[in-house]
Amino acid sequence: MNPNIPQTDRKRVVIVGAGFGGLKLARRLSRMKEFQVVLINKHNYHEFQPLYYQVATAGLEANSILFPLRAVFGNCKNVHIRITTVTGVRPLEKTVDTELGPISYDYLVIATGADTNFFNQQNIIEKALPMKSVSEAIALRNRMLQNFEDALSVETAEEREGLMDVVVVGGGPTGVELCGTLAEMRRTVLPSDYPELDFKMMDIYLIESGGELLGPMSVQSQEHSLKYLLDLGVIVRLNTRVKDFDGRIVTMNDGSTLRTNNLIWAAGVKASPLAGLPPDVIGRGGRILVNRYNQVQGLTNVFAIGDVALMTEEKWPNGHPQVAQPAIQQGKLLARNLQRLVHNETLKEFTYRDLGTMATIGRGLAVVDLPFLKFQGFFAWLTWLFVHLIAIVGVKNRAAIFLNWMFNYLTYNNSLRLIIRQKLPVGNFSAMQEKLSDQLEVSKT
Amino acid sequence: MNPNIPQTDRKRVVIVGAGFGGLKLARRLSRMKEFQVVLINKHNYHEFQPLYYQVATAGLEANSILFPLRAVFGNCKNVHIRITTVTGVRPLEKTVDTELGPISYDYLVIATGADTNFFNQQNIIEKALPMKSVSEAIALRNRMLQNFEDALSVETAEEREGLMDVVVVGGGPTGVELCGTLAEMRRTVLPSDYPELDFKMMDIYLIESGGELLGPMSVQSQEHSLKYLLDLGVIVRLNTRVKDFDGRIVTMNDGSTLRTNNLIWAAGVKASPLAGLPPDVIGRGGRILVNRYNQVQGLTNVFAIGDVALMTEEKWPNGHPQVAQPAIQQGKLLARNLQRLVHNETLKEFTYRDLGTMATIGRGLAVVDLPFLKFQGFFAWLTWLFVHLIAIVGVKNRAAIFLNWMFNYLTYNNSLRLIIRQKLPVGNFSAMQEKLSDQLEVSKT
Repeated sequence: MNPNIPQTDRKRVVIVGAGFGGLKLARRLSRMKEFQVVLINKHNYHEFQPLYYQVATAGLEANSILFPLRAVFGNCKNVHIRITTVTGVRPLEKTVDTELGPISYDYLVIATGADTNFFNQQNIIEKALPMKSVSEAIALRNRMLQNFEDALSVETAEEREGLMDVVVVGGGPTGVELCGTLAEMRRTVLPSDYPELDFKMMDIYLIESGGELLGPMSVQSQEHSLKYLLDLGVIVRLNTRVKDFDGRIVTMNDGSTLRTNNLIWAAGVKASPLAGLPPDVIGRGGRILVNRYNQVQGLTNVFAIGDVALMTEEKWPNGHPQVAQPAIQQGKLLARNLQRLVHNETLKEFTYRDLGTMATIGRGLAVVDLPFLKFQGFFAWLTWLFVHLIAIVGVKNRAAIFLNWMFNYLTYNNSLRLIIRQKLPVGNFSAMQEKLSDQLEVSKT
Repeated sequence: MNPNIPQTDRKRVVIVGAGFGGLKLARRLSRMKEFQVVLINKHNYHEFQPLYYQVATAGLEANSILFPLRAVFGNCKNVHIRITTVTGVRPLEKTVDTELGPISYDYLVIATGADTNFFNQQNIIEKALPMKSVSEAIALRNRMLQNFEDALSVETAEEREGLMDVVVVGGGPTGVELCGTLAEMRRTVLPSDYPELDFKMMDIYLIESGGELLGPMSVQSQEHSLKYLLDLGVIVRLNTRVKDFDGRIVTMNDGSTLRTNNLIWAAGVKASPLAGLPPDVIGRGGRILVNRYNQVQGLTNVFAIGDVALMTEEKWPNGHPQVAQPAIQQGKLLARNLQRLVHNETLKEFTYRDLGTMATIGRGLAVVDLPFLKFQGFFAWLTWLFVHLIAIVGVKNRAAIFLNWMFNYLTYNNSLRLIIRQKLPVGNFSAMQEKLSDQLEVSKT
């Protein structure tokens, strides 16, 4: 029980997940004398999700968008970080079960976010490349670079094209940003890296099931982003669904096919709630139903925030968008509300303040929708850059990082196209094999 | 045959290995109109070996010391890079066999370097952590950080200490630099990252079989480096050999034991020659016997340079030290000698110009032996820093990288202590399993 976490007079808040919401909440609580914080996360770092696509395309090194949790909470005596996986929650006993053993809580906050939604398409789960973690982004980078290497040595033009072509599924910000960057690379760094390959043969497809790109954005932004991508030579197919992929051939719902070894899946997310919650609190997309205080329906002292939470407001009848801002804003308010709860004060209702949406299409172009202003092009890109840099500085809290990041981002062409493979420790063979077997089981279910 | 490498009028030089020697040679040859260069390497990057220990201790990110080969040779039409493994050489047929198929050569240059020498101690091969590649350095970083995480949750003080203690075997530059950096981390960043752990319990041992540290350096430097390490609280055991390690207990040749989960093996190297060479050309430490023109004994048109080559000079009866300088100097001269060979000119003999040796012990202290001057301390450290920065700029050829590198190196405390695990692609399970089985076979032989 409670692996080496001391029992104190403070109320123990167990936070599961160190994404945007969990991290913001933990930072706020760490400064309040009422609480002991136990922050549980699978990795020892916070991932800055909006820039995964930069890692996948060798524009930024992974460490530029990862923030070690222990550096964020350096010297905080009332924050206990545990790197482990939560296997379930027992609300009646006020306990979460983890791979390190059970941990009891006074308040539990579920901030587990969302993962790729493959819509139960087994072949796609097995063969497509998702991009919902930094490991997946690195795997994507390795795969694409390795494919160019392989393309040098294959015998037929058909095989070569299959290795070079890329099909991206999902016309949201991730798909649009990825296609824009890939199209830029095709024009600039790739021909210089591979003078033996003819990059006129490399096709980049963007497949979107809806009738427009960047669904929730303004018509203006949708049209501009489409135009920018077409100008960059991306082949965009709207109103098209991917039905199947065998590792080489992508089949669409209209029966048409594309030959590629690279199918990148950015078509949707589903929430990752915890096992042990009553089934009736799970809503659409696997999200946990919460009231305006982020309390989980029918449970006392259990809260959910961010992507995993489904809170409806009049303006948001289907819940908030699954992006950083609602998570951050909920994390901030929940910290104060927990404090109010301890002092028996009245809680404040959450209201989402929509700060706007933006997406970038390559370096130099972006689309920005602010509540009272929409604009596109180079100035939009500068805005995008500025907002993301500020966000990163907000996490890292150091101006120097800002400069380093900007440097890495702007020079971008020379040092990151690395295929780094991790060595499997020989001694741990059996443990590794077990893990693999588990994965196989999972992939078979 | 010759996977998509065009046949031209130029002489084809096949270089195996893109370490210091192979890379220098390839760069020189790429500017000569007489040659077509085929550069074969296992990875798509050159590794700057002297700074592995920085990656292992989270002082530098891997990409700071890796240089993508395709970026180095961007747009070079007469350089053909192939990322593959050479399985053997057939000197009579002037062919090397690779996993991409056989490749014919006019001249072959073996620049395959050296790997960790475990002296055939099976338990140590399986359980110790080597540091002769960037993957191994990352694995070391992951392991040490994970051990600190595990130390938070174990029940007994004994287990906790085993996870925190580190035993480094080998008192060469790698061992000394690693111990110095670890001792610094124990004083600075680790207590801030893990306020729940008591770092007075963390012991750092350096085990050296000889009677002094930094064997080939001056007595002055040896004594200073020992003093620096002792001042930093490293426990140094000279004249001691590690005989066994079961993953938890290290046994020394005097029968004494140490409890640790971290045994880092930096005790020596052995050369990595190619299969298919006549056995009588393999000398001490697996090195290939070459004459003063780097020609392999008894073979025409086959050369070896750098760590894998054993060339004796009057001043170097046992061959040159296995460090960067001989490899670089041999690469430079061999480029000119190959040109002379093509034009039937007389070849020039190689003479090693010893530029000196240096090692750093933490940030701010180093020992430097120049041919006519030996000095230690802070100024030595500035010299060390300057020389390594110049060397890196020499590879990357861009002043901007210099600044970025310096920035990463000097700020060092906030963003790299990441345990990044690569996701195994589910779809490739069987390929991965095969690889694992191969590894198991290897570890059993």
